[in-house]
Amino acid sequence: MPSLRELGEVEAIRRLISDRGEAAGVIVGAGDDAAVLRLDQGCDLAITTDALVEGRHYRAEWMTPAEIGARLAAANLSDLAAMAARPCWAVASMGVRAEHDADELLELQRGLRAMLGAHGATLVGGNLSGVEGREWFSLTLLGEVARGRAWTRSAARPGDRLAVTGHPGRSQAALELLHRLPERARDAGQRGLIDAWRAPEPRVGLALALATHGHVTAAIDLSDGLAGDLAKLCEASGVGAEVETGGFASDPALEMAAGALEIDVERLRFGASDDYELLLAVEPGGRETCTRVARELGVPLAFIGRLSDRPGVIEAVTGAERRPISGMGFDHFAR
Amino acid sequence: MPSLRELGEVEAIRRLISDRGEAAGVIVGAGDDAAVLRLDQGCDLAITTDALVEGRHYRAEWMTPAEIGARLAAANLSDLAAMAARPCWAVASMGVRAEHDADELLELQRGLRAMLGAHGATLVGGNLSGVEGREWFSLTLLGEVARGRAWTRSAARPGDRLAVTGHPGRSQAALELLHRLPERARDAGQRGLIDAWRAPEPRVGLALALATHGHVTAAIDLSDGLAGDLAKLCEASGVGAEVETGGFASDPALEMAAGALEIDVERLRFGASDDYELLLAVEPGGRETCTRVARELGVPLAFIGRLSDRPGVIEAVTGAERRPISGMGFDHFAR
Repeated sequence: MPSLRELGEVEAIRRLISDRGEAAGVIVGAGDDAAVLRLDQGCDLAITTDALVEGRHYRAEWMTPAEIGARLAAANLSDLAAMAARPCWAVASMGVRAEHDADELLELQRGLRAMLGAHGATLVGGNLSGVEGREWFSLTLLGEVARGRAWTRSAARPGDRLAVTGHPGRSQAALELLHRLPERARDAGQRGLIDAWRAPEPRVGLALALATHGHVTAAIDLSDGLAGDLAKLCEASGVGAEVETGGFASDPALEMAAGALEIDVERLRFGASDDYELLLAVEPGGRETCTRVARELGVPLAFIGRLSDRPGVIEAVTGAERRPISGMGFDHFAR
Repeated sequence: MPSLRELGEVEAIRRLISDRGEAAGVIVGAGDDAAVLRLDQGCDLAITTDALVEGRHYRAEWMTPAEIGARLAAANLSDLAAMAARPCWAVASMGVRAEHDADELLELQRGLRAMLGAHGATLVGGNLSGVEGREWFSLTLLGEVARGRAWTRSAARPGDRLAVTGHPGRSQAALELLHRLPERARDAGQRGLIDAWRAPEPRVGLALALATHGHVTAAIDLSDGLAGDLAKLCEASGVGAEVETGGFASDPALEMAAGALEIDVERLRFGASDDYELLLAVEPGGRETCTRVARELGVPLAFIGRLSDRPGVIEAVTGAERRPISGMGFDHFAR
């Protein structure tokens, strides 16, 4: 278990590179000045980048190195899912301390590679920088999407239905539990919620399956929270939204966590939370098909409202009651 | 001059995005979950990533924000030059403190964009993370290269000539001057050397011009130093090298710095130094053409030796004297 300092940079990079595999479309892999890749003809290229910062997005005592790598991959995979792009290749840029255990860094990369590989992508290069203080891991992910067929945030239309995958709010609930409840005080349900936070499942398969049917008009990945990301989609498309609070599937895990944390369950569901779920605008006639496709893939998909022709007006509807959903997204620089 | 905390993340990102321009091949630009790009048909895609870490690669008192951005772009542009790839698009991942002045961050991005733009590339997306402690800036750069025509490190052959652009060692000399000599103690020559360090010129234009002639068999970007990077090229190609110390153009600036620093000039020239110059293997018949192309572009190009069929043997030749060039590359984790 040598540290990076003991191993030296050249040997550390050699081990990181030798842990990477062969993959389709890779003409020149890791170890040269750049990787060289070959896209399928007729495809556009989608590119996204996201980072995890120690102490900000994770703590070493909360998760294993492999789980850190997997979460980093998931954050980027979810962005490509929101574009209906098929993940292909990634490069990692890492800032690590000289004292970092070299085997743990390889474990982190294995977790990253395993999550990428589960969704069809492979690591083709990277950069290793020495840092003092907090470590950081940044990934850039490339994918292919049929020409002109990428989902954006900006093509939703009034009347489109709003659908959301999974269980928004669970990620933030898990983080609050990690912060506030010591491990021994957590019950089985809370531990399950935290395990789900450690191993998020980006909705790549569902996105690719839905894209073949053509009913989705706009999409966004839930990384800042349902209220904040819905507001972004509405602003980009120039529409408003009505969210039916009764439209969500019941979520006993979230409700239990809300009780333990003494937070309103709606605040968790709408507030800042990086769930890596998808929020979709679906043309009205597409609801049945989308529901069927999601059921076949075993992905929870709830229809939670519709888009309106009132730009900027985003409301929660509960029976006869209407109230504005104010932006509660996460701000990296707020105290 | 608000800080990022005062401005808030959403507004900071809005300003960063609004400062980006339109560009060829960009189907969906910054501001969605991912950017969508369209390659020229018949091209492969080259991808590289490199980062600058505060206190490690730069100090805020040494250079302006725009110069930091330009150096980050140059580091990545130089990698693509070494693949004979034409730079096209980039995404930036940045870890910045909440106290960071928002206008200075925009200045940094402008410096980055200007350097990218000077070589035909544009910024199409990014990610902003809050950090405590040291800041970091990571860039991923994409380029196009004619199918199967990328330069690699691994295709050099015994008998090929070795050529190097510019003045290897100057970057490290400038860093040593910055560390060791207070500003008032520096003479005009030393200041000129430091100015050159602040504004490196990646050899993209020369690489693209040389690539059309087909004489270059292998290439590597000088980011770790001539000895270290030559060793990497030789290892990848399974060859040895003989470097004629008399082959370098005289470099009075380097010699003056070596004198002031009391470091042997050869140690500066061969040792760890991120010069963003190119080291090329050229087939024997290509020397005249390469020399002419470089002269036409005003890029210094020196032929400094040849590759041998003795793998692992890398020697400096001065008249009748031969001695091994030991690896003196930069190790990020060494003390």
